[in-house]
Amino acid sequence: MELKRSLLPESDLPVEWYNLLADLPEPLPPPIHPLTKEPLDPAALERIFAKELIRQEVSQERWIGIPDEVRRVYALWRPTPLVRARNLEKALKTPARIYFKDESHSPPGSHKPNTAVAQAYYNKIQGIRRLSTETGAGQWGSSLAFACSFFGLECKVYMVKVSYHQKPYRRVMMQLWGATVTPSPSEETECGRKILASDPNCPGSLGIAISEAVEVALKNDDTNYTLGSVLNHVMLHQTVIGLEAEKQMKEFGDWPDVVIGCVGGGSNFAGLAFPFLRHKLAGKEMRFVAAEPKACPSLTRGMYRYDFGDTSMLTPLLKMHTLGHSFVPAGIHAGGLRYHGMAPMVSFAVKLGLVEAVALHQRECFEAARLFAATEGIIPAPETSHAIRAAIIEALKCKETGEEKCILFNLSGHGICDLGAYERYLAGELEDYELPQEQIDQALAELPAVE
Amino acid sequence: MELKRSLLPESDLPVEWYNLLADLPEPLPPPIHPLTKEPLDPAALERIFAKELIRQEVSQERWIGIPDEVRRVYALWRPTPLVRARNLEKALKTPARIYFKDESHSPPGSHKPNTAVAQAYYNKIQGIRRLSTETGAGQWGSSLAFACSFFGLECKVYMVKVSYHQKPYRRVMMQLWGATVTPSPSEETECGRKILASDPNCPGSLGIAISEAVEVALKNDDTNYTLGSVLNHVMLHQTVIGLEAEKQMKEFGDWPDVVIGCVGGGSNFAGLAFPFLRHKLAGKEMRFVAAEPKACPSLTRGMYRYDFGDTSMLTPLLKMHTLGHSFVPAGIHAGGLRYHGMAPMVSFAVKLGLVEAVALHQRECFEAARLFAATEGIIPAPETSHAIRAAIIEALKCKETGEEKCILFNLSGHGICDLGAYERYLAGELEDYELPQEQIDQALAELPAVE
Repeated sequence: MELKRSLLPESDLPVEWYNLLADLPEPLPPPIHPLTKEPLDPAALERIFAKELIRQEVSQERWIGIPDEVRRVYALWRPTPLVRARNLEKALKTPARIYFKDESHSPPGSHKPNTAVAQAYYNKIQGIRRLSTETGAGQWGSSLAFACSFFGLECKVYMVKVSYHQKPYRRVMMQLWGATVTPSPSEETECGRKILASDPNCPGSLGIAISEAVEVALKNDDTNYTLGSVLNHVMLHQTVIGLEAEKQMKEFGDWPDVVIGCVGGGSNFAGLAFPFLRHKLAGKEMRFVAAEPKACPSLTRGMYRYDFGDTSMLTPLLKMHTLGHSFVPAGIHAGGLRYHGMAPMVSFAVKLGLVEAVALHQRECFEAARLFAATEGIIPAPETSHAIRAAIIEALKCKETGEEKCILFNLSGHGICDLGAYERYLAGELEDYELPQEQIDQALAELPAVE
Repeated sequence: MELKRSLLPESDLPVEWYNLLADLPEPLPPPIHPLTKEPLDPAALERIFAKELIRQEVSQERWIGIPDEVRRVYALWRPTPLVRARNLEKALKTPARIYFKDESHSPPGSHKPNTAVAQAYYNKIQGIRRLSTETGAGQWGSSLAFACSFFGLECKVYMVKVSYHQKPYRRVMMQLWGATVTPSPSEETECGRKILASDPNCPGSLGIAISEAVEVALKNDDTNYTLGSVLNHVMLHQTVIGLEAEKQMKEFGDWPDVVIGCVGGGSNFAGLAFPFLRHKLAGKEMRFVAAEPKACPSLTRGMYRYDFGDTSMLTPLLKMHTLGHSFVPAGIHAGGLRYHGMAPMVSFAVKLGLVEAVALHQRECFEAARLFAATEGIIPAPETSHAIRAAIIEALKCKETGEEKCILFNLSGHGICDLGAYERYLAGELEDYELPQEQIDQALAELPAVE
């Protein structure tokens, strides 16, 4: 029987993360203070982030050791399988070889715990008692709750109120892992109270939830804040994905010509792509494709500029591809990709020409997901379906040209909590959204005046 | 780092199933025709089952080869991990070593596809075009839909109407894998039409859904019927679980003193336990514990007697532990354990004193599941929580006696589609159900007059 899945033994769990910053041909533009417009002193972040995470955020070391305590939790589901999608290849009648790295096997169901576990650990050893965060649909919140349960940390999640009520499954998941989940806006914080005073029925937003989570971290010495994407240290932690995949491609005796991931904040793409990018930087011919939704096309239609990471303008300014912090994307079902900006490291890789971007409509992505489920068995998250669609586009190009390319994509998460979205897709109720240029122009006009 | 998970390479995927019938000290009582009261001619089953499956149903061969086509689909998620539950051990402060075989990684999320794939394959090579089946909450229906998608078979699922409307997630899963799902009772069958004529608002039942699925198989030469538990060939296919676990226990340098599974129809328990049972039959000292719900206690409070396998009295009579085919269990959340009978092979093993049974309340099981999720990360299915609770009981006994026993249980499925039940548990809304003896007596009084 031909090899279907490469399963590394536990002894092959990476012992170090890979830091792409060490190998970039130019230095990454630093975060900037919104008032002084000067590069931010990393120490300023210590009020809400663990020291070691800030150190990693700016580190230029190529390899950063993974603590054994973190590896022990990773070992609950890592190494994850690398799978040859032979059935999908056959269905497409493509000469291309398609592989995917399956990050859906973590207990919360996605790649997110790769960084949640590391963040919980570093906060724990620093003496922090509680972590706060925000969550929309619940992917990040459930991953942090999961991670905190292993290090005896309290976990406080502000969940966008409308999701809290409409998407109870991920909320229950967080509660099972011991987290306290509060619908946001809440009466617990000043900013929550202020909003509720003026609008008692406010459905909440990610921006408001961030403000609440940051506020409790600022006001309580025993509490830190955590972020599930965008930042450099998050990209770093996710590189376990690509480091495992490298070994596994070798087990198949193969090597990717094209590496693909979906992008919202950018972390699952970075996790798979960055370890392979160092081979491109060393001269190997490879392509890298970041797949984003047409409804939120920061890489393909945004600007590469300094902007706030959040809609409430609380964060430092980050140089990134952005649609403007006031941009509100349409309510597509890939909730994890509805972010106005993009990780500075991913943005910089695109700017340097190392990474290409492609924007996709949600229906073509759901159609790709259906084909994937029928051939490879796994029901992917709507976010992940963008990577699958991008991989299929590449495979169909090979069918036309006859090229036998090797395509690798990241299966960042499963869609078992998203079957409601699939129901709407199967019922023909989903629509594609053509984003008018005026909407982008309007949001971009509000960009802060820092080039 | 100590070994956490044993991951066998794909080359260790079993090439044969193990047939316990070859090693039992006495022959299993055969199925009996309800009218003649004579042992059933297996050929009578050919109208609705594939020939090879009937051959396996009565085979006395110890080892039965697994076709490569079946192994190729198994390889999508098998071999599954065997995990040492060190975090759970620590939380319990037990000297016992606890292991679990993780069957939750299959795309439908449970052990069910182990037999669904084999059944789909044997029907396919016999020229059958379509498979019919019934499903309650949807675990079996989704596994069969998944399996059919790989062999180009149509899949027709009659889903209990109340579940069809109340539990749309598994229905959508089936539809994504290409199955046609019909709420039962339906207008498509004679028996459905008859029921709807007298009760247009009938919410349906598993018994009615079976009748519809069997009817379409009887009336259409190109359609066969499939069953997800109870029958001997189903137990056979599930033995891949225990065969892998045997090798994996050796990788840990350990061997189970106690093997545990939850039981509804009996297939996940049999799958893990039967390959280990042959060592007990060969003289090794081992215990086997089947964990059932107190709300449906066929092994602990039922009779070992001939009874119908279904509530509608359509099936042959099977010798098994039963609460009577008319028994209607309370609406506990472990829907997969709400079966009045028990697989004849599991029943016989209990009768022979090879297997013990324990009955558990649902709240203690949910509590066990919560502890398991907080320590080992995985949210188990409510059915599976019975096995976890039974394992914890054994581990706590060790804590009292100081014995360093080795406990192995089957993590038969995840609970991501059951988070609604967990929500009710966390809200304190679940109740334990003390089953009155009169209810059992009443159902047992209707047993057919065959000893």
